[in-house]
Amino acid sequence: MIPRYTRPEMAAVWSPERRYRIWLDVELAACEAMVRLGQVPPEDFGALQQRFQGFQFGPADVARIEEIEKTVKHDVIAFLTYVEELGGPAARHLHKGMTSSDVLDTTLAVQLREATGLLLAGLDRVMAAVKRRAFEHKLTPMIGRSHGIHAEPITFGLKLAGWYDAWGRRREALARAGRTVAVGKISGAVGTFANVDPRVEGFVMERLGLEGGEGAATQVVNRDRHAELFCALALCGGTLEQQATEVRHLQRTEVREAEEPFTAGQKGSSAMPHKRNPILSENLTGLARLLRSYALAALEDVALWHERDISHSSVERVIGPDATLALDFALHRFAGMIENLRVYPERMKENLDLTGGLYEAQRVLLALVGKGVARQEGYVYVQRNAMKVWEDRIDFRSALKKDPDVRRALDEAEIDACFALDYHLQHVDTIFQRVFGR
Amino acid sequence: MIPRYTRPEMAAVWSPERRYRIWLDVELAACEAMVRLGQVPPEDFGALQQRFQGFQFGPADVARIEEIEKTVKHDVIAFLTYVEELGGPAARHLHKGMTSSDVLDTTLAVQLREATGLLLAGLDRVMAAVKRRAFEHKLTPMIGRSHGIHAEPITFGLKLAGWYDAWGRRREALARAGRTVAVGKISGAVGTFANVDPRVEGFVMERLGLEGGEGAATQVVNRDRHAELFCALALCGGTLEQQATEVRHLQRTEVREAEEPFTAGQKGSSAMPHKRNPILSENLTGLARLLRSYALAALEDVALWHERDISHSSVERVIGPDATLALDFALHRFAGMIENLRVYPERMKENLDLTGGLYEAQRVLLALVGKGVARQEGYVYVQRNAMKVWEDRIDFRSALKKDPDVRRALDEAEIDACFALDYHLQHVDTIFQRVFGR
Amino acid sequence: MIPRYTRPEMAAVWSPERRYRIWLDVELAACEAMVRLGQVPPEDFGALQQRFQGFQFGPADVARIEEIEKTVKHDVIAFLTYVEELGGPAARHLHKGMTSSDVLDTTLAVQLREATGLLLAGLDRVMAAVKRRAFEHKLTPMIGRSHGIHAEPITFGLKLAGWYDAWGRRREALARAGRTVAVGKISGAVGTFANVDPRVEGFVMERLGLEGGEGAATQVVNRDRHAELFCALALCGGTLEQQATEVRHLQRTEVREAEEPFTAGQKGSSAMPHKRNPILSENLTGLARLLRSYALAALEDVALWHERDISHSSVERVIGPDATLALDFALHRFAGMIENLRVYPERMKENLDLTGGLYEAQRVLLALVGKGVARQEGYVYVQRNAMKVWEDRIDFRSALKKDPDVRRALDEAEIDACFALDYHLQHVDTIFQRVFGR
Amino acid sequence: MIPRYTRPEMAAVWSPERRYRIWLDVELAACEAMVRLGQVPPEDFGALQQRFQGFQFGPADVARIEEIEKTVKHDVIAFLTYVEELGGPAARHLHKGMTSSDVLDTTLAVQLREATGLLLAGLDRVMAAVKRRAFEHKLTPMIGRSHGIHAEPITFGLKLAGWYDAWGRRREALARAGRTVAVGKISGAVGTFANVDPRVEGFVMERLGLEGGEGAATQVVNRDRHAELFCALALCGGTLEQQATEVRHLQRTEVREAEEPFTAGQKGSSAMPHKRNPILSENLTGLARLLRSYALAALEDVALWHERDISHSSVERVIGPDATLALDFALHRFAGMIENLRVYPERMKENLDLTGGLYEAQRVLLALVGKGVARQEGYVYVQRNAMKVWEDRIDFRSALKKDPDVRRALDEAEIDACFALDYHLQHVDTIFQRVFGR
Repeated sequence: MIPRYTRPEMAAVWSPERRYRIWLDVELAACEAMVRLGQVPPEDFGALQQRFQGFQFGPADVARIEEIEKTVKHDVIAFLTYVEELGGPAARHLHKGMTSSDVLDTTLAVQLREATGLLLAGLDRVMAAVKRRAFEHKLTPMIGRSHGIHAEPITFGLKLAGWYDAWGRRREALARAGRTVAVGKISGAVGTFANVDPRVEGFVMERLGLEGGEGAATQVVNRDRHAELFCALALCGGTLEQQATEVRHLQRTEVREAEEPFTAGQKGSSAMPHKRNPILSENLTGLARLLRSYALAALEDVALWHERDISHSSVERVIGPDATLALDFALHRFAGMIENLRVYPERMKENLDLTGGLYEAQRVLLALVGKGVARQEGYVYVQRNAMKVWEDRIDFRSALKKDPDVRRALDEAEIDACFALDYHLQHVDTIFQRVFGR
Repeated sequence: MIPRYTRPEMAAVWSPERRYRIWLDVELAACEAMVRLGQVPPEDFGALQQRFQGFQFGPADVARIEEIEKTVKHDVIAFLTYVEELGGPAARHLHKGMTSSDVLDTTLAVQLREATGLLLAGLDRVMAAVKRRAFEHKLTPMIGRSHGIHAEPITFGLKLAGWYDAWGRRREALARAGRTVAVGKISGAVGTFANVDPRVEGFVMERLGLEGGEGAATQVVNRDRHAELFCALALCGGTLEQQATEVRHLQRTEVREAEEPFTAGQKGSSAMPHKRNPILSENLTGLARLLRSYALAALEDVALWHERDISHSSVERVIGPDATLALDFALHRFAGMIENLRVYPERMKENLDLTGGLYEAQRVLLALVGKGVARQEGYVYVQRNAMKVWEDRIDFRSALKKDPDVRRALDEAEIDACFALDYHLQHVDTIFQRVFGR
Repeated sequence: MIPRYTRPEMAAVWSPERRYRIWLDVELAACEAMVRLGQVPPEDFGALQQRFQGFQFGPADVARIEEIEKTVKHDVIAFLTYVEELGGPAARHLHKGMTSSDVLDTTLAVQLREATGLLLAGLDRVMAAVKRRAFEHKLTPMIGRSHGIHAEPITFGLKLAGWYDAWGRRREALARAGRTVAVGKISGAVGTFANVDPRVEGFVMERLGLEGGEGAATQVVNRDRHAELFCALALCGGTLEQQATEVRHLQRTEVREAEEPFTAGQKGSSAMPHKRNPILSENLTGLARLLRSYALAALEDVALWHERDISHSSVERVIGPDATLALDFALHRFAGMIENLRVYPERMKENLDLTGGLYEAQRVLLALVGKGVARQEGYVYVQRNAMKVWEDRIDFRSALKKDPDVRRALDEAEIDACFALDYHLQHVDTIFQRVFGR
Repeated sequence: MIPRYTRPEMAAVWSPERRYRIWLDVELAACEAMVRLGQVPPEDFGALQQRFQGFQFGPADVARIEEIEKTVKHDVIAFLTYVEELGGPAARHLHKGMTSSDVLDTTLAVQLREATGLLLAGLDRVMAAVKRRAFEHKLTPMIGRSHGIHAEPITFGLKLAGWYDAWGRRREALARAGRTVAVGKISGAVGTFANVDPRVEGFVMERLGLEGGEGAATQVVNRDRHAELFCALALCGGTLEQQATEVRHLQRTEVREAEEPFTAGQKGSSAMPHKRNPILSENLTGLARLLRSYALAALEDVALWHERDISHSSVERVIGPDATLALDFALHRFAGMIENLRVYPERMKENLDLTGGLYEAQRVLLALVGKGVARQEGYVYVQRNAMKVWEDRIDFRSALKKDPDVRRALDEAEIDACFALDYHLQHVDTIFQRVFGR
C-alpha cells in the first residue's frame, strides 16, 4: 500500500524486519520443542537462545538475506543460511524436519493475528465515536429518505444507531475470521509429520499465541481460511462505504445537514476557493472498492493444486499488507471524521419542513382508514394532494383541508393532529435500548 | 438459474407462489399481533384466517397479481389489492402502519433461512461422503504433490481428511451467515415504528421462526447481512473448486489415480469414443466462478443511499435464487461424485514409484545431518543425485549408494532405511483423531 | 435472466429452439462444403436440405433431445441422434470429422453476433435520445457540481453531451468485441483439421456470416475473445450506472432538477402516497453490478487446461444469456427514461442561485490576480468571504464588496462583472461541435 | 506494487519525481499557449522556461511539496506553492483558469501512455519468444488433451501458434485502450472552458503527445476510458494465466514434457532437495488474479457523482502503478521463461504412446463409417475397445483387430492405416500460414 494510506503501526506488522523475527521465533520455538523431546542438545539450543535473545533484524540483515536469495532463489533457505552465519554451528538444528511453509504459514498466521488485532482496535474507535454521536443526536430530528426522496422523520441518532449495529456485526465477523486464520502448521513437506513430531506443532502454536495447528494440513494451511478473512475485510469496506456515502449526501450543497471537519488552512479546490468537499468520505468510498477487489483475488487463491502450488504467494505478498493497511487507515480516517463531524440540526429542521408536511401523508392515510375509508380509496385522496405539492408547490396540510373527500372523513383538528413531529420519535428509546442496551 | 443447474427443492423456495404465501404469512402474523394489541377487531382477523387457512397461491393467482402490477407499478400494492379481492373487507386491516419493505425483507429472510437450511443439508451429504471415503482410504498410500511435482508420500485418506476439515469450516460459516440474514423488520417506512407497535415485529419474527428484528432498521434490513451470506456461498464455491480441481488432476491420463463415476451409455466425446472426462468436476469449477461473481455484486449492494434505495433489488432478484440454486446443485453433484468416485490404489502405487524413491530425498538429507554433515553441505549431496534422476532417469537409491560423499556418512543399510513407506504413515491416526475425533 | 428483465427479442437468441436451429445450420453448411469437396454425395445432402428447409425446432423437439441426452449425457450426440431420427440415413454424413465444439463454438459465435447486434441497436436508441435531449437543453443553465458541492455553472445540454460522447466510446468498443467473438471453428477435436478439410471451415464461416475461423484453434475458440466481450458489456454497465446515478441525484427532494417519467396510476410507496422515486435509475444501478460480476466470471474462463476443459461451459450457459439480456433490457429502460425525462429548468435556476453567486469565487480570484494580487493571497481573500457564506448565509457578492482587501483591487463594477452567467456558456457551441460535429 | 514485482523502467513512470515533472510540463505548456494567445507576457514565460529548463525534481523537492500539502491538504496547491518558491513571481501565471484536474488528468494520461508503451514492448518480447519457439517446434508431435485426457496428436508448435494468436489480440486491445486513455483536459472546473481558451487544451495535448482533449469533459476525463484500460490489462492477465497454467501442466512429474528454466544454485525446496517446481508460472497465475481484481475496482470508478467526485483517486493511486507494474513484470518474467523453456520432445513422444494408440479412436470410427457402418453403431464398437484399454491396459490396435464387428468392416491393413501420426500434421503449414503469414 502506498505511504499515503499507511499507518506506521500496521506497516510494522508487514516489515521485512518483523517478518524475519517471526520466522526466527518459529524456528526457535520448534527447536525448543525438540529439545524437550530429546531431539536437540539443550546446550546447542542454549547457544542459539543467547545469540538471538532480543535480536532485531535491521536493514543490513534484510539486505544480506536478499543477496543470498538471489543465488539460491528460495527465501527460507536464504534466511536459514544467514541465521547460520549469525548463529554458528548450533543453527544446524533449526528447521529440522520442517518445510518452508511450516515457517511461512505460521508466520503469516502471526502477522494476520496482529493485523486483525489492530483492525479490531480501529473498529473499537469507530464504534465509540459513532455511539457518542448517536447519543448526542438521539433526539435531533431530520427527514428520513428513501430513494433520495423525503420519506418520514427520523433522528440523526437513529441513523447512527443503525451504523453502530452494523459495526457490531462487522466486528464480530472480523474477530471470528481473525481466529480462523490464526492457525499455523509444523507438519512438514506434505503435512504428514513424517519428519517432525506432532507435539512440536502444538508447542510452537501455543508459544506464538495461535489458535492451533491446521487439522489436516497439506504443505500449507488451507487458503479458505484466508479468503474468509479478506471477505471480512471487504465487508467492513462495504459498511464504511455505506456510511461514507451518507456523509457525502448530507454534505451536498442543497442538503448541508452535516459536514466533514474542515481544518484551518485547508483548500478545497485550486480553482474554486469556496469549496468545502467531503473528500474524506469520497476517499473511503474508493478504499472500499480496493477492499472488495482484494477479496476477489483471495477467493481465487483457494483452489491450489494437490498439496499446494505457490500461486497464492504473489497474491498474498500484495494483498496481505495492502488490504489490512487500507482498512486500518480507513477505519481511523472514518473514526476521526465522525468524532469531528459538524452536524447542523437547524438545517435538518429546514429540510424537514421543505415539503410542507408531505411526509405525514401516511398518517393522513391511516387516519382516513381509521375513519372507515377503504385503504385504496384513501390512497387516491392522499396521493392526489401530494402530487399537487410536487407540481404546484402548495402547502400539503392546507390542500388536504380543502379536499372534500378528505373532509368528509376528517375535521380540521383531526388533520392537524397528523402533523405532530413527536409522533415519529415515540420509539427512539426502544430502539436505543435494542442497540446499545440502554 | 437455468433448469440444468436447478434442483426442485431449492426452486420451490424461490417460486412466486411460495413468495406470495410468505408475504401473506407476514401480513397475517402482523395482523394477529395487532389483534392482541387491540388494534384490529378479532372477528375481522378470524374471517381472514378462515379464508386463507391452507391457501396456496397458484399460477392463476400469480398472473392476476402481475396484471395488477402492470397498472400500479408496485409489487406489494398489487399483491394487497389482490388479497383484498380474495379476502373481502376484512383485508383492509392488513399492512396497517407497515411499509412494503417490512413484507419484502421479512420474506427474504424467511427464504434465505430456508435456502440456507437446504444448503446445510447438502453440506451434510458432502461431509458424510468425504468422511466415508476418507476412512476407506485412510491407509491408501499415494504421492503428495506440491507444484504438481512429486513431494513425499501421503495417503488418499489424509487428503480427504483435509477436505472434511475445510467443509467443517465452510459449514460453520454458512450456518452463521444464515442466522445473520434470518432477520426481518416490521418497523415502517423509515424504521421508527411510528405507525406500528414494536411488539408487532417481535410477534411476527417469532411466528415466522426468524432470529429477530433488525436492531435499528432503516426502511430495510441492512445489506451487510446479505453480503456476508453471499460471501459464505462464494467461499463454499472456493472449496468446491479446490476439491474438484484435485479430481480433475487425479483423472488426467498420465495420473489416473481416480476417476469420476462413468455410467453406462454415457459418451465422453462426439468425435473421440475413447474419452472419459472429468466433466462433473469441470462443471463445478465453472459454478464456483459464478458464486464468486455473485458475492461481488452483493458486496456492492451494501452502500444504499440514506434510509434505502432500491438498487439492491434487481441484484437480489437474480442472485438470491441464482447463487443458492447454483450452490445447492453443486453440492449434490459433488456429493454424488465423491460417493461414487473410482479410486485406483494400484495406480497410486505405480506413480509413487515413478521416481525411484526420489521423494525420500529429505530423509536422506536428515540422515546425513544426523551423522554430522552440515545441512547446506548435505543439501548439495542430495540435490546433485536427485538432479541426475531427472536428467538421466537413473534410480535414486542406487545413485546415492555410489556417491562417495554420501557413503562417507551413511552405509548401505542406513541408506536403505531411508526408503520405507511406513515412515510417512506413522501419524495418520493422530491426524484422523484431530479431524474426525476418532 | 428472470422474465422481469428480459425482452423477447433477446430471449429469442438464447432459446433452445434457436440454438438447435443454428446447430443444424452449422452441420448443414459443413456438409454442403463437403459435397463441394466431393466428400459427401450430393443426393444425400439434397435429401437433408429438403427435409430441413425452413424447419424450426419446437418445444417437442427440444424435449425429445433432452430425453436422449439423459442417456448419452452429451448434448451434441443427443442432438445428432435426434437429427438422424428426423433426417434418415443421409444424416450420417453430418458432423463428419468434426467435434462437438466445432458446432458449439460456432453456434455461440452466431448467437453472440446476434446479441451484439441487438445491443448495438439499443445503444443507437440510447444515443438518439441523449442527443435529442442534449440539443433541447443545450443552453439550459444549471449548477455544475463536484463532490456534490456547487462548483460553477454548466448547461444540462453539456452534461448530456458528455454522456453521448461516452456512449460513442462504449458503442465502438462493443462493436469491436462483437467482431472479436464472431469467430467459429470447424477444425476437429484438437484444431488440427486432421479429419476435416480447412476449406470446410472457411465455407461455414462465410455461410453463417461470421468473421472467420479461429487462427489456431485448440478444441475450442480461445476464451479471451469472450472475456473481452463481457468486459465490454460491463463497461456499458458502468456508463449506465454513471448516468443513472446522475438522474437519481437530480431527482432527490432537495434538488428536483429532473425526474423520471411517472405514469398515471403508478404508486411510489405502499405506505407513503406522496413518493415519486427514481426507481428506474436505481434498477439500472443494480443491473450494472450484475454486469460487472458477469465480466469477472468470464475473465476466469480464459485459463482453460491444455486444448480445453469444459469449466467455461457452465459459466457461459448462465452469463451468455444473463449478461446480454440484462444489458439489452437496461439499455431500453434507460432510453425510455431519457426520452421522457422531466426536466425542470426553473428548479435548475433556483439551485444555481442558492449560494448567492458563490460559484463565481474563481472569477473573483482571477480578477484579483489580474489586478496584480498574488494568487495565494487572493485565494485567502476569496476563501474567507466564501466561508462566511457557508457559515452565516450571507450574500457572497455583498460580502466581497465589504472586504477592504478585495476592494483595494476591485471596484463595485468590477466585482459585479464577475457575476454574469453568459460567461460560462461562451464555449457551449465549441463543445457541441466537438461531440456532435455540429 | 512491492519491489519484488517491480521493474525500474515502469517504476520510473510512477515516481513522484516524474509525476511532478509532468505536472510542470502541463503547466508550462498551458502557459506557453497563453503566451501565444496574448494572455501571458512572453518575458514572464521566458523566465519560467529558463528556470525549469531540464529541471528534475529530486527527493528533497518531493519532501518539501509533501510538507506544504500537510497544511493546505491539497496536492496541486502544494505543488504550485512550491513552484512559486522556485520560479519566483512569474509563476503566478501558471494554472490560470485551470483546475487541479486539468493537471492531474492530463498527467495521468501521459503516465498511462508511457506505461502502455512499456507494456506493448513487453508484449513484443513475449510474441517474439513465442514465435521463435513455435517455429522451433512446428513439427514436434505431442498429444493434445481435452479435459486433461489424451485426445489426438498436435505439435508443440501448434500450441504456441495459438498462444501467439492470442497475444496478437491482446496487444491490439491494449494498444487501443492505451489510445483511449491518452486523453487529457484543460477545460477548467467543470469543463466549460469558462476561464481558459479551448485552444490552450489543443496546444497542451499536442505538446505532450496525447490523442486530444476530452470531448465534453466534466471536471475530469470520463473514467470509462480508464476502466477500459484496466480491463485490457486483466485480459492480458487471463492470457498469461492460460499459458502459465499450460507450463505448470507440462512440467508435472507424470507429464514432464517441458520445464521452466532452472538455474545453477537454485533450490526448489528447503525440505526436499529433489524438487524442480514451475514457480515462475505459478507466480504468473497469482499475478493474473491481481490484475483481474484491479479491473474490478476500476469498473466501479466509472460512476462518479455529477461533474466528479474524488472516490476514483484513491483507487487510481494504488492500481495505476500496481496494475501496470504487475503486468510489466509478468510479461518479462513470462518472456524470459518461454525464451529458455526446456522442451522434451522424447517425453512428448512417450506420452503420445501411453495409450497404445487410443487417440486414433476417431479415425477408426471414421473408417468404419466410411465402410458403411452406422455412426452410432461404430461409436459403440470403438468405445467398447477403448474402455478395455482403460480398464485392462491392453493395446488398442490389437484389441480392434480381435473385435469381430470391427473386422467385418476393416481388415488388418485398414486398421493399421488408422495409426499413422503424419495424418495429424498434414495441415500444420496451413495453420502457421494463418497465424504467422508464413
